[in-house]
Amino acid sequence: MTASAPTVGRRRPGRPRDEEIDGQIIGAVLALIDAEKEVTVTRIVERSGVSRAALYRRWPSLTMLIAAALDVGRTVPPPVDAEGDLHAAVVGAVFGDSATVSASGYSEVRFRHRIQLVMADRALQKAYWHSHVSRRRVPVEAALRRGIERGILREDLDVEACFDAMAGVAYYQLVVRGARFDEPGSQARMKAALDVIWRGMLA
Amino acid sequence: MTASAPTVGRRRPGRPRDEEIDGQIIGAVLALIDAEKEVTVTRIVERSGVSRAALYRRWPSLTMLIAAALDVGRTVPPPVDAEGDLHAAVVGAVFGDSATVSASGYSEVRFRHRIQLVMADRALQKAYWHSHVSRRRVPVEAALRRGIERGILREDLDVEACFDAMAGVAYYQLVVRGARFDEPGSQARMKAALDVIWRGMLA
Repeated sequence: MTASAPTVGRRRPGRPRDEEIDGQIIGAVLALIDAEKEVTVTRIVERSGVSRAALYRRWPSLTMLIAAALDVGRTVPPPVDAEGDLHAAVVGAVFGDSATVSASGYSEVRFRHRIQLVMADRALQKAYWHSHVSRRRVPVEAALRRGIERGILREDLDVEACFDAMAGVAYYQLVVRGARFDEPGSQARMKAALDVIWRGMLA
Repeated sequence: MTASAPTVGRRRPGRPRDEEIDGQIIGAVLALIDAEKEVTVTRIVERSGVSRAALYRRWPSLTMLIAAALDVGRTVPPPVDAEGDLHAAVVGAVFGDSATVSASGYSEVRFRHRIQLVMADRALQKAYWHSHVSRRRVPVEAALRRGIERGILREDLDVEACFDAMAGVAYYQLVVRGARFDEPGSQARMKAALDVIWRGMLA
């Protein structure tokens, strides 16, 4: 995707239908994914009614388009308040973002499809990581860095590795155990693991 | 799979060819998986040369057979020496088991296929979890329990959740970041995260 390519949700004066066209394209991609069909430009054109030229103008890369579609219903979480009870704020944010997998906007079925697709295609996996997952990490990582500044967390902390550990517990439940995130067992293990990780991060 | 069903590697007096037949069956399943073909009884019979009756006698459940095939090249790790330097022993064991994904016996390609297959089929995922992954956890979990007895680790530790956290970091590298386990970045994050988790487990 080039720097000038439009993104979903953008508005431009005088071209009020752009958003609608983007929605049609993304909707067609999601319908193909949910039907477990291979996502091709031809099929997107057929389903969306958007011309091939318009599609390529918006999404020069099919991989980036699929990555964007996989992220519909997930958003970059709001900033974490790092000035008060940091423990509660960080744990709440990690739980909250993981819980969106169970929420209506981003179903578990689509989560499972997303993992299948990225494991089948490393380019898509990297694209999805750079443009989506890594951006959702920013608020919690910023809060952890503020925690170091405030003297609450260890100075030598590898903030990225700490996030990997916290999010890793959630992925382990879904990808390895085959558990649902909202099962009591998953919730208890998440809570216990986040407590251990938190203690290990303390100054 | 019933309690009396034979397992790979078993020997029975007077029936020396059982192992060989099991090997042919497992080999056929792996060939189908590696070729990204759907694994069916008919295809296994064709590829292995083993009769349908013999196949069903050995593997009443196709799901369990696929789970067993997915685990070829991975073994239950040996007991962890929990009487000496527990930190070094546990970290070494967790790194060692994760590293087998990069080792020749269990390629990353097959790991990626395994994740795709289990995310597409929750029954397979649960079968693979119960008969394989959960068994590989035993040595490290036993060492952690011994660490609690020795007074090194906190009494109130949720040992399963701690394992989830440690293994979760490794899965996060491969499944979410799309990194290889043996990349320096993955190794550094694994090490940093395991240090944090270890500190959080200490009494």
